Amino acid sequence: MVYITRKETFSAAHKLSRQDWSDQKNQEVFGKCSNPNWHGHNYVLWVTVKGEVNPETGFVTNLSDVSQVLKSYILDKLDHKNLDMDVDFMKGRYSSTEVLAVEIWKQIEKPIMALGCSLHSVKIQETEKNTVEYFGS
Amino acid sequence: MVYITRKETFSAAHKLSRQDWSDQKNQEVFGKCSNPNWHGHNYVLWVTVKGEVNPETGFVTNLSDVSQVLKSYILDKLDHKNLDMDVDFMKGRYSSTEVLAVEIWKQIEKPIMALGCSLHSVKIQETEKNTVEYFGS
Amino acid sequence: MVYITRKETFSAAHKLSRQDWSDQKNQEVFGKCSNPNWHGHNYVLWVTVKGEVNPETGFVTNLSDVSQVLKSYILDKLDHKNLDMDVDFMKGRYSSTEVLAVEIWKQIEKPIMALGCSLHSVKIQETEKNTVEYFGS
Amino acid sequence: MVYITRKETFSAAHKLSRQDWSDQKNQEVFGKCSNPNWHGHNYVLWVTVKGEVNPETGFVTNLSDVSQVLKSYILDKLDHKNLDMDVDFMKGRYSSTEVLAVEIWKQIEKPIMALGCSLHSVKIQETEKNTVEYFGS
Amino acid sequence: MVYITRKETFSAAHKLSRQDWSDQKNQEVFGKCSNPNWHGHNYVLWVTVKGEVNPETGFVTNLSDVSQVLKSYILDKLDHKNLDMDVDFMKGRYSSTEVLAVEIWKQIEKPIMALGCSLHSVKIQETEKNTVEYFGS
Amino acid sequence: MVYITRKETFSAAHKLSRQDWSDQKNQEVFGKCSNPNWHGHNYVLWVTVKGEVNPETGFVTNLSDVSQVLKSYILDKLDHKNLDMDVDFMKGRYSSTEVLAVEIWKQIEKPIMALGCSLHSVKIQETEKNTVEYFGS
Repeated sequence: MVYITRKETFSAAHKLSRQDWSDQKNQEVFGKCSNPNWHGHNYVLWVTVKGEVNPETGFVTNLSDVSQVLKSYILDKLDHKNLDMDVDFMKGRYSSTEVLAVEIWKQIEKPIMALGCSLHSVKIQETEKNTVEYFGS
Repeated sequence: MVYITRKETFSAAHKLSRQDWSDQKNQEVFGKCSNPNWHGHNYVLWVTVKGEVNPETGFVTNLSDVSQVLKSYILDKLDHKNLDMDVDFMKGRYSSTEVLAVEIWKQIEKPIMALGCSLHSVKIQETEKNTVEYFGS
Repeated sequence: MVYITRKETFSAAHKLSRQDWSDQKNQEVFGKCSNPNWHGHNYVLWVTVKGEVNPETGFVTNLSDVSQVLKSYILDKLDHKNLDMDVDFMKGRYSSTEVLAVEIWKQIEKPIMALGCSLHSVKIQETEKNTVEYFGS
Repeated sequence: MVYITRKETFSAAHKLSRQDWSDQKNQEVFGKCSNPNWHGHNYVLWVTVKGEVNPETGFVTNLSDVSQVLKSYILDKLDHKNLDMDVDFMKGRYSSTEVLAVEIWKQIEKPIMALGCSLHSVKIQETEKNTVEYFGS
Repeated sequence: MVYITRKETFSAAHKLSRQDWSDQKNQEVFGKCSNPNWHGHNYVLWVTVKGEVNPETGFVTNLSDVSQVLKSYILDKLDHKNLDMDVDFMKGRYSSTEVLAVEIWKQIEKPIMALGCSLHSVKIQETEKNTVEYFGS
Repeated sequence: MVYITRKETFSAAHKLSRQDWSDQKNQEVFGKCSNPNWHGHNYVLWVTVKGEVNPETGFVTNLSDVSQVLKSYILDKLDHKNLDMDVDFMKGRYSSTEVLAVEIWKQIEKPIMALGCSLHSVKIQETEKNTVEYFGS
């Protein structure tokens, strides 16, 4: 079993705030992330897949195929977008990095499996100081 | 003459689009940066000041003072904000990285001079691939 | 279960040498790290906690609370200090990165638990080439 | 149990192509990596070992010994070499990053064990976007 | 006058050796870089252009145009290639980083000028420790 | 004229405090850098030299010679040392990064000239946020 990781980046706007909470409560819980007019990040995404090494190619899977999955299912939907307004699979969810990692997992689990390997983890860096990783359960 | 540089970061939303242009022209010129619902970045800011070394301290100037200037004049206004909606000194201007560098220079030139040194450059990284630097003229 | 990681840095002096060993033996075992007049590092600290995503907030826990725990229990004690002379929880211990990781774990395990999640790992980079990680057992 | 990681780098040439395949098939499977006249990378190698902390030294093992193992068994053979032509333990194998990680594991597993600890993982970054990790089974 | 920089990367093989020198002399002068079977690097390329800010757009020039120039004139020719065998503008020249920077300058000076700005510098990192910069004279 | 830069690192202890000042004044001016029991950093050093490209080699100068100068004159004296106690050329001087850059320039200016090129700048990063550069006058 070998693990391979593809790193991608996307730039997006978002905010953390609940409409059913007062501005004061949003500020208390979400701090500066609750700014009504949005803020944004250069997110870094690492997707790790695992599998046996194919003796025909020396590859677990072709990383260009993994990259294509990430482009179609994730990056085309998130890059230079608003996570709260523009993304179908984030509608009605908080755009915390934790939720984003879980939702990205759901989007790509099957397409990755179709490449003959399995999804191991989705890791997202929101800022240089804050990173989240999800292993699927 | 010695040059000292302080690195700071801020996360902000913005978009590039002109109201007097059609959506199509905005898309042609500004590409994915013209997304109507905003996008955002983790900007990196390097401010370089220069001066003689003070024989009393071994410092050109106290970098904690430079840091305080950047906090008051720039970071408190830009971090977790919308560059096009929330920032007094960006009102009515395009939020391209070039314009942002020039406007930050204008904000901090005098406060830096008040520290007994002079401003040498303002450098901003918008994404890992794109950086802008301004030397004041 | 989602894993979230906070990255912090601290700058500290230390040395590796045993008083019950000759200078020659200290030099043999600890090499240049045994310099009697100390040396120092910009340490990088990554603390990973894990838990369920809170449906109220989309957070495992508020990373600003994790950051506050790290500030109070670790960074205020280690940053710009001497690991062998100034730090209560390192008294009488070697300041190897391995020992430091274990002792930091002991300091923060309960305060992290009080935030409603659990401590997963403490990782410390001493130099760009050398990193240590501890998972609590 | 504490985990310690040593980071090293090496610069090498290689290509991915099978002699029993047509140029067209090599191009389809391996893309630009199949360029007949080679290409190359600055590879980054992280080797993680694990063990109990030695109460005599505060070390799991002396990282300078790990570094010496990596120099003798790996870096002297790979750095500024051609992975497909110059490396004894890669003869007859594809120089994919997956295969390279597995073969490096085989070379260093016993020498690391001789240091009184055990090998945990071999991680290799081929480009900033592509990384492979192997845990030995 | 504002300076904007685009960062790109390419992976290539090369060697440093003169056919009119003995193996021994090549080894003395070029060290491990003279390995007959090639070695390679992940090169990092930063191209800086300068100009006035266009009041229509807030841009010095559209960085996507700079990126397109770099793709057509440089990256398509160098990425996953052998600098000594595959590159038209390096034929008959040493593939030292110094020479490479000068030759890249010659290739892109005019296409950059055609974008309405001027080329300021070509900087190339060969390894994390070695970087070269050329300002055109 | 081409500019080449060598990057090196060293880990050292130091403090900023004047014996002729009260503890309170040292604390006011130098803040946490005045801790009596020292602190330390992983310093990063970039030395840039400039010259014509030698048509015999394609080199401005052999970077391995620059590296040897840095090892003999600087790194052997600073790495894993105390800047205030162990370094001949820092005796009686403040160990601010500004002063350190100027003193390193003085040490290496002539040895670099002896390599047939000239010293352009000495740049030192003390922490990820603070960097100093000196151009010799």
